[in-house]
Amino acid sequence: MDGGSTAAHAMFEADAASRGLGIELVSAGGGRAVARMEIGPAMVNGHGIAHGGYVFLLADTAFALACNSHGPVTVAAGADVEFVAPARLGDVLVATARERARWGRSGIYDVTVHRDAPDGPDGPAVVAEFRGRSRVLRDPVPRPR
Amino acid sequence: MDGGSTAAHAMFEADAASRGLGIELVSAGGGRAVARMEIGPAMVNGHGIAHGGYVFLLADTAFALACNSHGPVTVAAGADVEFVAPARLGDVLVATARERARWGRSGIYDVTVHRDAPDGPDGPAVVAEFRGRSRVLRDPVPRPR
Amino acid sequence: MDGGSTAAHAMFEADAASRGLGIELVSAGGGRAVARMEIGPAMVNGHGIAHGGYVFLLADTAFALACNSHGPVTVAAGADVEFVAPARLGDVLVATARERARWGRSGIYDVTVHRDAPDGPDGPAVVAEFRGRSRVLRDPVPRPR
Amino acid sequence: MDGGSTAAHAMFEADAASRGLGIELVSAGGGRAVARMEIGPAMVNGHGIAHGGYVFLLADTAFALACNSHGPVTVAAGADVEFVAPARLGDVLVATARERARWGRSGIYDVTVHRDAPDGPDGPAVVAEFRGRSRVLRDPVPRPR
Repeated sequence: MDGGSTAAHAMFEADAASRGLGIELVSAGGGRAVARMEIGPAMVNGHGIAHGGYVFLLADTAFALACNSHGPVTVAAGADVEFVAPARLGDVLVATARERARWGRSGIYDVTVHRDAPDGPDGPAVVAEFRGRSRVLRDPVPRPR
Repeated sequence: MDGGSTAAHAMFEADAASRGLGIELVSAGGGRAVARMEIGPAMVNGHGIAHGGYVFLLADTAFALACNSHGPVTVAAGADVEFVAPARLGDVLVATARERARWGRSGIYDVTVHRDAPDGPDGPAVVAEFRGRSRVLRDPVPRPR
Repeated sequence: MDGGSTAAHAMFEADAASRGLGIELVSAGGGRAVARMEIGPAMVNGHGIAHGGYVFLLADTAFALACNSHGPVTVAAGADVEFVAPARLGDVLVATARERARWGRSGIYDVTVHRDAPDGPDGPAVVAEFRGRSRVLRDPVPRPR
Repeated sequence: MDGGSTAAHAMFEADAASRGLGIELVSAGGGRAVARMEIGPAMVNGHGIAHGGYVFLLADTAFALACNSHGPVTVAAGADVEFVAPARLGDVLVATARERARWGRSGIYDVTVHRDAPDGPDGPAVVAEFRGRSRVLRDPVPRPR
């Protein structure tokens, strides 16, 4: 874990849901963040394929870390995800979030989720492409997601 | 659980990820599905607010049940979600999926996630609006998500 | 043109872009709107297929009329569109916008664009499914789109 | 106009709709494209603000040029757009499309539309962020959009 952003790191400390899934904060700061998660037995169906919801959740966590790396409490207003390839039991997924645009209290962040392994016969290493829409809260009281 | 769609019910039986979170299949058939989930302690942050990823996951499960209720194995190509209001520890969420359009091997399904409770001071009962894009697999071998 | 919403009708009067394309306001009021447009020679490519941008534009106009039918000046924050079938020279397209959810200053509107004709060998009558995200302006000064 | 991609350039030649609006193909090739358009009097409302549909149309043209720069006939399956700032009469808009991911017959392309001018008091130079979803046609007969 790097020391890039205190706000994002504090948010991650409070995010019991992400930590309970074994998500690791690799780095956060300057509108960027990287998070990792291993696909465990509770995340797959009977065929060993990860539920898309868990792939989304990892991307959403990286997005939240990136948009909160600036300081003010920021929430996800919405997101679009495209599932590129299935993830499987034992895969280690890495979500890399980058700020694309920021204006007023709004922002757009692109997150790519890829398998932490070289491309193989299963197809491309990219698992999902996610685009999140963020909103800085006016309310000074933190209401993190 | 109703007996509307054998394909969707078989898929749900194999979906250990959804069942492991306590998601309940309320009904599935004819391009529609309803699923329920209670927000448990593992799904929230330190402030008792549900991680958006779990809200997405419930909507995605209802979407998968609806688009597989027709029979042929169908996967999620992508989805868009808008977070309307936060969900909290103990909330029971209901996701209602309805087919909007189907053409060729593609489809669009709208899923509304609402709290199973009347509107209150916390805001509207709707928690999220989700739109999923589905794709029927050519491959006859099942590769459910 | 009905008399449902003065705000939406006034907006349409000022919308020279929509009127210049021959878009007709069929009705607007109560979070709903219907608009029509014929695909003319300037909207198609050399193969007689309408540019998707014009299909989007019609949907966006119906969306704007629906979300402004409540009164306060409201703008499009964003939208997602899925192209279901091509539109062709001479097709008359009808865009039907319906409010899906409204909370705080935000809203979601679903717009279906269909050909004003029965289903035929060219495929389904639906041309596009659009979902718009609206935002009520704080600023009392109108800044219509 | 550069000589990067014959397929994209041929497509643009046939795209009477784009050329009729004065859209200029700046470059296309290798999964990228740049297109320009000036906001003319027919594209604005009574307040001199461009209809969002025309901003989308420019982005959609750049997207189509980028995804067809590889050769096989490729169509837009759908797109998501976020409107960042209004465009005004006389603004020259530049749409820059870049391939983000490609797998099977599917692809994702990101398009940024910005004003061809330095940032000013009107806000950021970025006007819209667009993400297109493409699909290569199986049918060898061209059916460009």
